[in-house]
Amino acid sequence: MTQEFHFDIAATDSAARTGVITTPRGKIRTPAFMPVGTAATVKAMHPEAVKALGADIVLSNTYHLMLRPGAERIAALGGLHQFMNWPGPILTDSGGFQVMSLAKLRKLDENGVTFQSHIDGARHVLTPERSMEIQDLLGADIQMQFDECVKLPCAEAEARRAMLLSLRWAERSKKAFAQKPGRALFGIVQGGASEALRLESARALVDMDFQGYALGGLAVGEPQEVMLAMIDCAAPHLPTAKPRYLMGVGSPDDLVESVRRGIDMFDCVMPTRAGRHGLAYTRAGKLNLRNACHADDPAPVDRESANAVTRTYSRAYLHHLVKSGEILGMMLLTEINLAYYQDLMAGLRAAIAARRLDEFCAQTKEGWRGSDAGTQEAED
Amino acid sequence: MTQEFHFDIAATDSAARTGVITTPRGKIRTPAFMPVGTAATVKAMHPEAVKALGADIVLSNTYHLMLRPGAERIAALGGLHQFMNWPGPILTDSGGFQVMSLAKLRKLDENGVTFQSHIDGARHVLTPERSMEIQDLLGADIQMQFDECVKLPCAEAEARRAMLLSLRWAERSKKAFAQKPGRALFGIVQGGASEALRLESARALVDMDFQGYALGGLAVGEPQEVMLAMIDCAAPHLPTAKPRYLMGVGSPDDLVESVRRGIDMFDCVMPTRAGRHGLAYTRAGKLNLRNACHADDPAPVDRESANAVTRTYSRAYLHHLVKSGEILGMMLLTEINLAYYQDLMAGLRAAIAARRLDEFCAQTKEGWRGSDAGTQEAED
Repeated sequence: MTQEFHFDIAATDSAARTGVITTPRGKIRTPAFMPVGTAATVKAMHPEAVKALGADIVLSNTYHLMLRPGAERIAALGGLHQFMNWPGPILTDSGGFQVMSLAKLRKLDENGVTFQSHIDGARHVLTPERSMEIQDLLGADIQMQFDECVKLPCAEAEARRAMLLSLRWAERSKKAFAQKPGRALFGIVQGGASEALRLESARALVDMDFQGYALGGLAVGEPQEVMLAMIDCAAPHLPTAKPRYLMGVGSPDDLVESVRRGIDMFDCVMPTRAGRHGLAYTRAGKLNLRNACHADDPAPVDRESANAVTRTYSRAYLHHLVKSGEILGMMLLTEINLAYYQDLMAGLRAAIAARRLDEFCAQTKEGWRGSDAGTQEAED
Repeated sequence: MTQEFHFDIAATDSAARTGVITTPRGKIRTPAFMPVGTAATVKAMHPEAVKALGADIVLSNTYHLMLRPGAERIAALGGLHQFMNWPGPILTDSGGFQVMSLAKLRKLDENGVTFQSHIDGARHVLTPERSMEIQDLLGADIQMQFDECVKLPCAEAEARRAMLLSLRWAERSKKAFAQKPGRALFGIVQGGASEALRLESARALVDMDFQGYALGGLAVGEPQEVMLAMIDCAAPHLPTAKPRYLMGVGSPDDLVESVRRGIDMFDCVMPTRAGRHGLAYTRAGKLNLRNACHADDPAPVDRESANAVTRTYSRAYLHHLVKSGEILGMMLLTEINLAYYQDLMAGLRAAIAARRLDEFCAQTKEGWRGSDAGTQEAED
């Protein structure tokens, strides 16, 4: 059942689009939120439960998997899908971002990055060619070019240098990409917080003709308006007919605002990480279940949620589990958060299809004001 | 639907029995293994999954719940069943064992025990009356008398003093027990490693007429043969028609040997704790998934298990999760272990019903020899 990778837009509302990405391993409804399965597991979740919450695709991290258990080992075991019991589509990042944020003793040159593992200090080299080889060994359905991601704020010259290097690495990634039926390679727009650099990057990548385009190097410390300005600047120069992926984003409000600007795909550790730290994302905003105000509250997180965990377990019980450091607390809150994220994406898709996105966004943001922990901004 | 608590023995094979304990909250097939839900959660398990694995009843700990979140709080929230989303029967211990093993600055006298919480150092008093009050507030279906449990080995005089005190506390517990339709109170046979003391304790408790009888103060460091000798000595003096519960036991081999001697109920942290430490209990014995020999092994833990997790995830993946400290590793191994324990109990029940227990036990023990980690002895 070999199928080409393709993207069909079913409806638009202003710049926002809803549609379906087709891969041989399944369809991805867009806009899509991809739960993060860093080490070949969406933390504290059974893979069947991730799917049942509405996720069509998960992301996994090349950097982590190359270090442990190793890409060649996963390949010998039948590939990442079989290894982690996730038969649906998987997107892998290139490893570039995490080499910069996690590895020790990095040395970057034209060829690639030499670094020491944060786990055992072992020396590794990651190049565009090796990144593509690893992603092929893993068997990822959507693979990402190797890039250099700078922290923001960043001097223009430094952002320009990294952007141009990432373009050269994009060419090498494309050349090294093991094209197999239905597999896609995405380019990554870089350029820091500079509109001019982002534009230059987008145009050069479009000329190279990738199957999708990501915006990288955002949600790395800059204010939301900077991130949105970068989307506003780059998105109109990306091909309408191809998926656009905003990497590492974000809070529910980030998702809403980015979808309005034409983004189709997201990944972020926020819902899963927050769930392991006692925070719940809900239609009424964020709840901090550590707060003593929940200790005697028999109400569930959201009585009207479609998710059974969200409408069943009391805030008092979740508070107890979180205060006691119980694993079940992390399991339940991770599920509650992923359920909310997928519910939000489903709402965005339906609103675009009905051409009432503005109304949906206004209602959604109004709902968030009911929380005990402020708005849906990023914080961890 | 008020029903009396009762026990019906369906079949026997030598000293072993199989039957059903009926409670208003559901039936308990015996011999029964009760997963331990110390802090109102069977660690790393959704309650629905615990039930689906075959558990008819769970145990929860009075000591932990009185300290956090507090028995009055749980009562105000609708009781322990609603709090932890477990609608089936629950057995609570009396708190006595854990006051001895966990609390700080204990002071024991005729009245009870004064101690400091291991969580926050707060001062608490536990007496037979308060233990029964807490168990009533929790709403436990099977409640345990307050007792004093000594560590083994123990001088005969000390074991005797504690046994006699436990008998006086048994009388006070019975008087304080809030009898409600279908609820049961069990007495606890003490007496250390002395057959004479165990016999004296059993006879005195039988005279008090409890709805079930436990053997306490075992699996506290003594060799298996001492534990089995205590069962051999006490069990024949307990009423045939009432359930017999061996507290805190044990390894699969302990369960098999105790069932042969007429025990009907067990609880133990072994399967759940081992699951959080990388160990799997299987029909072929124990597996230590930390061992490097599993790193490249595509085989599941047991290809022929009725449990999907046990027959689906590769040993290589479990090894990876355990080495990476991933929560999913604890979740999967806890499930694998509880599935094996429930499968073993189901096998014991069927074998007794078919009057072929000896054959079943011999085959089961033969199977355990295939493991990489030795026999099914207790070790954590």
